[in-house]
Amino acid sequence: MRIAVVGATGLIGRAVVRALGKGHEILEVSHRKARHRVDITDLNSIRSMYRELGRVDAVVSAAGAAKSAPLSQLGEADFEFCLANKLMGQVNLVRLGMEALNDGGSFTLTSGVLAQKPMPGSAAVSLVNAGLEGFVRAAALELPRTLRINCVSPGWVSETLAAMGKDPSQGIPAAVVAQSYLASIEGTQSGAVLSV
Amino acid sequence: MRIAVVGATGLIGRAVVRALGKGHEILEVSHRKARHRVDITDLNSIRSMYRELGRVDAVVSAAGAAKSAPLSQLGEADFEFCLANKLMGQVNLVRLGMEALNDGGSFTLTSGVLAQKPMPGSAAVSLVNAGLEGFVRAAALELPRTLRINCVSPGWVSETLAAMGKDPSQGIPAAVVAQSYLASIEGTQSGAVLSV
Repeated sequence: MRIAVVGATGLIGRAVVRALGKGHEILEVSHRKARHRVDITDLNSIRSMYRELGRVDAVVSAAGAAKSAPLSQLGEADFEFCLANKLMGQVNLVRLGMEALNDGGSFTLTSGVLAQKPMPGSAAVSLVNAGLEGFVRAAALELPRTLRINCVSPGWVSETLAAMGKDPSQGIPAAVVAQSYLASIEGTQSGAVLSV
Repeated sequence: MRIAVVGATGLIGRAVVRALGKGHEILEVSHRKARHRVDITDLNSIRSMYRELGRVDAVVSAAGAAKSAPLSQLGEADFEFCLANKLMGQVNLVRLGMEALNDGGSFTLTSGVLAQKPMPGSAAVSLVNAGLEGFVRAAALELPRTLRINCVSPGWVSETLAAMGKDPSQGIPAAVVAQSYLASIEGTQSGAVLSV
């Protein structure tokens, strides 16, 4: 398959690229570091990316930022940033990418455990992740040409915990998280939230 | 209790006002028709509303629009409308209303069944409803002074079905939906999504 991985230079994106291995043609995309570039907050940048990539069989997004901060410190601009970035950035990868996908192709987006299991500081992140999951469930009902869409909801990733000085054994290795993206790409399900 | 009902002139808002009955002081708020007015897409309008209302024991929101349309016809402006209206409109009623609530007071927002059970045409609505539920679960962890927040997720309302020319017995009467708002206001739970 010809697979675009958006956010290919991030922790999860790298693990997905590795897990996909040599059996596929991987098109690595990121904001600044990969061969192909995209700013997912910019519709024109997404359109340019799809023109540059040509037709693909799968689009993986492990991209999109959202801000963690105490609710009392989250301002209007913070919510706008989160909505434009991790939420609508990924929604727009789908909206503008449908025509780039070959028949039977798939989108696999990334939400996160805070959608369902919040913690203090996650109000905007939980909103974004849960909203994305709602979108994925609904969009799956309408995609044409047997296109599919799923969402991977990773828990805390071991490598992230290690970087935070916490116990990595409490998390899930990125290589394990990556297997859920493969399940979405290579499987038949659609509208699923794959919790890891 | 002194209770602000935002969206008081809508189908659910009217049922909530009726269900609260005469034991409370009800402050009816809506965009155009009630005694008090607010445009929930406008931060300054929300601030003015809270200044006008003074301190309250509960804020109910049965307000906020979102657009149903086929995914292929939902444009950037449609998503922006939905995010600014039913999603961030209600989030901002909370963000800007915390100080107006007396200790132990509550927010009760409104999502909807499409958050979890989508149908064709609900991509933006499902996103908004699910995002709101994610926010409510998270915000509940951080509200000060034993403030509470819940979300009522109504299924199809009988009166709405009747207005659409469909069988109202397949839905839930607004008066029954209203009981979940009372449960949120008068109960002790927080961070809950009350599905009706």
